[in-house]
Amino acid sequence: MQNETIDLLCRHRSIRAYKETSLTQEQITLIVSAAQSASSSNFIQCSTIIRITDPSKREKLAHYAGDQKYVIQAPEFWVFCADFNRHYQIDPKLNLGKAEQLLLGCVDTAIMAQNAVTAAESLGLGAVYIGGLRNNLDKVTQLLDLPKYVLPLFGLCLGYPDHHPELKPRLPKELVFFENHYQPIEHAILTKYDAQMDDYYKTRSIHQKVGGWSDKIAKTINNEQRDFILNYLHKQGWITK
Amino acid sequence: MQNETIDLLCRHRSIRAYKETSLTQEQITLIVSAAQSASSSNFIQCSTIIRITDPSKREKLAHYAGDQKYVIQAPEFWVFCADFNRHYQIDPKLNLGKAEQLLLGCVDTAIMAQNAVTAAESLGLGAVYIGGLRNNLDKVTQLLDLPKYVLPLFGLCLGYPDHHPELKPRLPKELVFFENHYQPIEHAILTKYDAQMDDYYKTRSIHQKVGGWSDKIAKTINNEQRDFILNYLHKQGWITK
Repeated sequence: MQNETIDLLCRHRSIRAYKETSLTQEQITLIVSAAQSASSSNFIQCSTIIRITDPSKREKLAHYAGDQKYVIQAPEFWVFCADFNRHYQIDPKLNLGKAEQLLLGCVDTAIMAQNAVTAAESLGLGAVYIGGLRNNLDKVTQLLDLPKYVLPLFGLCLGYPDHHPELKPRLPKELVFFENHYQPIEHAILTKYDAQMDDYYKTRSIHQKVGGWSDKIAKTINNEQRDFILNYLHKQGWITK
Repeated sequence: MQNETIDLLCRHRSIRAYKETSLTQEQITLIVSAAQSASSSNFIQCSTIIRITDPSKREKLAHYAGDQKYVIQAPEFWVFCADFNRHYQIDPKLNLGKAEQLLLGCVDTAIMAQNAVTAAESLGLGAVYIGGLRNNLDKVTQLLDLPKYVLPLFGLCLGYPDHHPELKPRLPKELVFFENHYQPIEHAILTKYDAQMDDYYKTRSIHQKVGGWSDKIAKTINNEQRDFILNYLHKQGWITK
């Protein structure tokens, strides 16, 4: 029953080192077609991709994203934006600034990007999402001339992988897939997973560390606060009502 | 160069009529594995899926989502939630309520769901996202016992298709894929697309209508305001800071 597509999805790893080989125009067109083929809530089509080919913009974006050098190194770097400015241009009297539009914009833009990732990986390419762009939303917005009602959510590196990281074990299905109602954590299962992650971290080929998943998670979340985002959203016309 | 996976992605249609055939346990396991294999920002793993097998809950959810009967008819209906309650259980002193967590939660949950859709479609199944759950977030939250820091973003129907809708043409690539900076709409291209959509709407096998895409879009967006969402988010612990 498992097939090539499911195999492909299940062997996804984020790729952070790329060969110099460029993507062809045909590959880019296929990836964008696949991306656009994702569902669009009420057919609103509120996502925009900005492909960054200007080297000085790539350097700045890499810096804004926390000096992740693969943002420069990857043959392709695309910025995915939730975009209601398209609709605002069509009708400037539109009732925007609703929280619903923020949620819809994030969801639809993300599912589009995930199709891009799947399509790219099916072509032998690798990818990594760059949420780090959200470290500097104001600067990204200015650099790319993003008008009101556009939200640059994340970047995406694409290219031929130059390394082969190990698969990182996900939380056990019993902790994320419930039936009919939410369930509190089963601590025995989490403890076992932490041991599995400890083993993964100790033995992987790069960035080895000790400890499991749950001992790190508070620090990870508290470190990445990006406190300015709510103000930024208001300024860009999101969730004003 | 086009391959089976890209073909699959590019022929996606939302399916709103299902055969009675159930999914097997193996299919469900494969789909969830594929879903969990999607990237997770900083490995936070903040998504939860609630599978709805209780028929009375299915009926209520179908009603909350605007009486979309396929929510009842589909063999499987899963509710996808952004979930930071998992992390709150691990550390109740966590600094939550940031806009960053809302964005991250929406993005990561959506990319997980899109992998589920792709995996399901590769198995010959069909799917449709049910954003309509957001019509009644309070009721969905109560029905599924969702604690604070959990946000039910959308549902997903899965099953064997019992109809074969036409492919719906997306916006031309030139209107959604820019280079180095945002660009205003090229109206000649939009006009041509509207004509293409008018033709699609007139000739498709069900729900025929007249007009293109841009003439409908203001009405579509203004109709789906869901004004209560910001209050709901605050109440559930999201974007309080």
